[in-house]
Amino acid sequence: MYYVGIDLGGTKIAAGIVDEKGTLIYKDSVPTKRERPYQEIIKDMAQLTLKIIKDKGLEVKDIASIGIGSPGTPDSKTGVLVYSCNLNFDNVPIREEMRKYIDLPVFLENDANCAALAESVAGAAKDVDDSIAITLGTGIGGGIVINRKIYSGFNCAGSEIGHMVIVSDGVECACGRKGCWEAYASATALIRQTKDAANANPESKINELVKGDLNKIDAKTAFDAAKLGDPVGEKVVNQYIKYIAEGLSNTINSFMPEAVVIGGGVCKEGEYLLKPLRERVYADIYCKGSVPKPYIRVAEMGNDAGIVGAAMLGK
Amino acid sequence: MYYVGIDLGGTKIAAGIVDEKGTLIYKDSVPTKRERPYQEIIKDMAQLTLKIIKDKGLEVKDIASIGIGSPGTPDSKTGVLVYSCNLNFDNVPIREEMRKYIDLPVFLENDANCAALAESVAGAAKDVDDSIAITLGTGIGGGIVINRKIYSGFNCAGSEIGHMVIVSDGVECACGRKGCWEAYASATALIRQTKDAANANPESKINELVKGDLNKIDAKTAFDAAKLGDPVGEKVVNQYIKYIAEGLSNTINSFMPEAVVIGGGVCKEGEYLLKPLRERVYADIYCKGSVPKPYIRVAEMGNDAGIVGAAMLGK
Repeated sequence: MYYVGIDLGGTKIAAGIVDEKGTLIYKDSVPTKRERPYQEIIKDMAQLTLKIIKDKGLEVKDIASIGIGSPGTPDSKTGVLVYSCNLNFDNVPIREEMRKYIDLPVFLENDANCAALAESVAGAAKDVDDSIAITLGTGIGGGIVINRKIYSGFNCAGSEIGHMVIVSDGVECACGRKGCWEAYASATALIRQTKDAANANPESKINELVKGDLNKIDAKTAFDAAKLGDPVGEKVVNQYIKYIAEGLSNTINSFMPEAVVIGGGVCKEGEYLLKPLRERVYADIYCKGSVPKPYIRVAEMGNDAGIVGAAMLGK
Repeated sequence: MYYVGIDLGGTKIAAGIVDEKGTLIYKDSVPTKRERPYQEIIKDMAQLTLKIIKDKGLEVKDIASIGIGSPGTPDSKTGVLVYSCNLNFDNVPIREEMRKYIDLPVFLENDANCAALAESVAGAAKDVDDSIAITLGTGIGGGIVINRKIYSGFNCAGSEIGHMVIVSDGVECACGRKGCWEAYASATALIRQTKDAANANPESKINELVKGDLNKIDAKTAFDAAKLGDPVGEKVVNQYIKYIAEGLSNTINSFMPEAVVIGGGVCKEGEYLLKPLRERVYADIYCKGSVPKPYIRVAEMGNDAGIVGAAMLGK
C-alpha cells in the first residue's frame, strides 16, 4: 500500500506518494492562493491528490490514507483546522471537505509535528522510540514523538516549544510573550543579532562580507565571518549557540527524548554548529552519574519532511 | 487485590497499602538512616512492607505488587537506582535486593513522577488522560502523565521541569545552570526574594511580621504581608506569581496537558495564588482562537502522594 501526504502551506500545496518505509516516490504541487474561500483550496488539494495518484499509474484503491500537515492548530480527532493564522482558516472542516472528493481516511496534524514524525519514521531519529525535532527557521517549530507517534497534547495545540521563555522580560516575540526561545534562536533572531553586531562594529568582517549593505545579512553571514577569524562574528555565533543550547537543554530536561533532531538552514553549518552545541547542552542537562545522554543530530528529511510525515499519519 | 507503595526518602521510609482505586488504607514508616550500606536500608524496606501487610491482616498473596518511589534517577526497566544525590546511591539494584525478601513484582520510579501518578489516579487530575504535576518546594519537582502512565523519557531521567532556564544567565541553581525555574519559583526562592525585599525595605510589614528577625521569614510571610495591604509584600507576591507563570506557561506550551496540578505548601494560599496565576498563564500560552486551555488546579493528594503513586506503578 501507499500513502498520500500533503503539506498545506501558506504559499503552496505540496502532495506526494509515500511507501510504507517512508520513502517519497512522487510529488507535485500547486499554489495555495490563500485569499480564496477554503472550499476552493481544499478542492485543489483533492484534485492534486487524484492527479499524483493517476500520474504515478496508481488507483485510489492502492492508497491506504491521506495525511495533511497544516500550520496552526488542527483537531486531529475531528479533522477540523481549529485555528491557523497563516491560512486565515477558522474552524474549517478539512476532513469532511476532502471526503466529498475522495473516499479515503483523512488524517490532519500540525506541520511541525509531521516533520518530527518524518524524522522518526525515515530520518535522523529512526533508530529511537522517543524523539523531538526542532526547526530553526523564521520561527522555531517543534514536534514531539513518543513511542513513534506524535504527541500533540489534549487539544492538539502542542508542541509550541519555540514559545518557551528563556529570557524573562526579554525580546518581544510574535506570540505576545517576551523572551521566547524563538526570539533568540530562530534564523530570524540570528539575522537580527548579526545586524546589531555589524551596526555596533562597522570594522567587522560581517560588514565586509555584505559590502556594507546590512540588508544583505542572512543566517550564514555571522558564521562566514567567524570562520574567517572575525572576533565580532565569533561572538555572535557563540552567543547564538548559547541561546540554542539554553532552549534545547530546557527541552531535554523536560522530555528526555532519546534523540533531538535539529533542522533549518543553519544546520548546514554542520559540526561547526553541532560540536559546541553538544558540549554546552551535555554540560547543562540534568543527566547525572552514569545516566545516558540523548543524541543531538541534524535533520535528514529536508523539504520533504512535511509530505512524508503527513503521509505517515495513517500508518 | 492491594498494592504496596513505598516512599523512599532521605529521612524516612514510608510504606502503605493502597486499594485499586488509589485509596491509602494503612501506612507506617521507619527512619532511613541513609549513612548505612544500601543492603541494610533495602532490608528495612522489605521488613516494613511485610509488617504493614501483617498489621492490616493481609498476606503476601493479597498484594499484587510493590512500587518504590525514590529521589534521583531510577532505571525503571532494570529496577536499579542509577543515581541519587539525596541517598548517596550509585547503581543500586533495589528490585533484586527487595526480591531476596519478598516474591512480588517490584516497580521503581522517581518520587516526583510517583506524585504525579497519584494525582492522575486519585487526585486533582483523575478526570483527564494527560496531566503534569509540579511541586513548589525546596526545589521544583515535576512529573508527566501521558495517557494515565508516567512518561519519564528513554533514560528515566525526566522530567526535570524545574531545571528549565527562564532567566538566561540568572540566579545560580543547585544543578549547575544559571536561571532555572527552580531558582525563581520554588519555596526556597520565594523565601530568598522575601528576605531581599525585607532587607531593602526595613519599613515593610514583612519585617514587622517576623519582628525584625529575617531568619523567621518563610514561604508564607510575603503572602501574609500582601494580604495586610503591604506594598512590599504585594510586589514580592506579584513577582513570584509571575515567575511561577513563566515556567508554567513554558511547560504548557511544550506539553499541552489537559490539566496542570500544583502542589507544595505555597498552594495553601488557594485562589489568592491561583486566580492571578491562571490569568497570567491563560494570557501567555499559545492557545489561539477557540482552542481549549488546560485546567490549572491545586494538588489534592498531600503527603501521601508518594506512597499512592508508587503503589499505582503496578496497576
